[in-house]
Amino acid sequence: MKPFDTIGIIGTGLIGGSLGLAIKRAGLARRVIGVSRHADSITRARRMKAIDNGSLNLSIMGDADLVILAAPVETIIRIADKLKAVLKPGCIVIDTGSTKEAIVRALSRTFPLFVGCHPIAGSEKRGIANARADLFKGALCIITPVRTTDRAALKKVKRFFETLGARTCTLTPVAHDTILASVSHMPHCLAFALINAVPAAWLAYAGSGLRDMTRIAASDSKVWEEILCTNKSAIVRAIGAMERQLRAFKLAIARADTKTLRRLLVQAQQKRQRLA
Amino acid sequence: MKPFDTIGIIGTGLIGGSLGLAIKRAGLARRVIGVSRHADSITRARRMKAIDNGSLNLSIMGDADLVILAAPVETIIRIADKLKAVLKPGCIVIDTGSTKEAIVRALSRTFPLFVGCHPIAGSEKRGIANARADLFKGALCIITPVRTTDRAALKKVKRFFETLGARTCTLTPVAHDTILASVSHMPHCLAFALINAVPAAWLAYAGSGLRDMTRIAASDSKVWEEILCTNKSAIVRAIGAMERQLRAFKLAIARADTKTLRRLLVQAQQKRQRLA
Repeated sequence: MKPFDTIGIIGTGLIGGSLGLAIKRAGLARRVIGVSRHADSITRARRMKAIDNGSLNLSIMGDADLVILAAPVETIIRIADKLKAVLKPGCIVIDTGSTKEAIVRALSRTFPLFVGCHPIAGSEKRGIANARADLFKGALCIITPVRTTDRAALKKVKRFFETLGARTCTLTPVAHDTILASVSHMPHCLAFALINAVPAAWLAYAGSGLRDMTRIAASDSKVWEEILCTNKSAIVRAIGAMERQLRAFKLAIARADTKTLRRLLVQAQQKRQRLA
Repeated sequence: MKPFDTIGIIGTGLIGGSLGLAIKRAGLARRVIGVSRHADSITRARRMKAIDNGSLNLSIMGDADLVILAAPVETIIRIADKLKAVLKPGCIVIDTGSTKEAIVRALSRTFPLFVGCHPIAGSEKRGIANARADLFKGALCIITPVRTTDRAALKKVKRFFETLGARTCTLTPVAHDTILASVSHMPHCLAFALINAVPAAWLAYAGSGLRDMTRIAASDSKVWEEILCTNKSAIVRAIGAMERQLRAFKLAIARADTKTLRRLLVQAQQKRQRLA
């Protein structure tokens, strides 16, 4: 018997579509159904066999034993009540949002069997066209249970991601948002700010360094607006830490303080080597 | 007949070694000779056939018709007088340094046939072990002639890089340093500062975004200390521009000013798309 009869995916984009492909490859459900606001995303997801059935309408989710919310952060929060009205009792609900405090606070109230999740597997690419069955292989999935989280549902969700090849760990929603502000949200702001800081006419002289550093600046602006607005204080703090480090470089360079500069450079080089 | 009889390379690392391999593949010289401070770099360069002969001693360069200085910026400047004493008349001298004003000012005085060059083809990898014959294929080589530059030598050097598969353009040393401060030197500072700003214990939660953004932070610290110290004012200005952009993001996020945030994000996304 499959772990789930029917799994529903809301948002058949890069993450949702990849989850569909991975679920089917791993044999985790008899049937995968999908909901999207875009008819062509559903058509394409069906053609790629990421889902068996799709709809523009949430009511299709009435069959699901597990529903995965793989939409932008604010969409996830906005559709919760409407989704609740169609779900059958016992349905587990998870999400894949990039910020967790706002989502977990809202959805833990709405759904008795909600588990907040964040598989760290996105990229600047988006849409079902870029979906891959192996997107979660070796990726880390952060699960953010709270005091009220159902332990059986939590265990099932943990096993679900591990079956897809992901590693899992648990963090509180606050710890998740604080850490991700530093390792993901602030670096995204940096990439956006960097490409904005370079005069357009000079881009022709860029090497692979600038290309790599600004790759994520091509990320979807709507998705990122929602991430930045649902994790404000942690991101502002992380940008503050970044500003202090950058100012240290600026001062050391301006003063030709080679001793300080060497210390900062060696620290960076050694720390980067730990990030295999 | 080959364009050059003997080409000498000073510094048989990533750039120097790759030049040796590329010169031999393109048949640009009858013989390639190399100088390094490290005996094993010479041994390895000979074994890889990047050079035919190598020495720890500059005097070997007395045979060369073209000498390429592929060493760190300050080393290039430091050894100029010693090199001048051994070169034969008519020998063209070029360099591959990442900053041009300091080098061109010093070396234009020392060598009658000096042409400043900067092939934009490095990476965070270094050493002869990473040398590749195709490193310059499709790369841009910026040539920085000044009023006193010999026109025949300039033409020959331009053709030299184009034969290796590079595109060439000319800029004044000041324009080169201003532009490169923005598209390369400041972004390197950003990568160094970013990895220093992220608490070490949180690196385990990093995705591909942080990895890509800090890849160049693994660059050689000695090389970068010299680049940063020989292009101080332009880099300090470029960091200033970056600080203003980052502050704009911080303020928009802190104020939840979604209108400004959206404008900044869309600008970044569209600008990044132009950087193919």
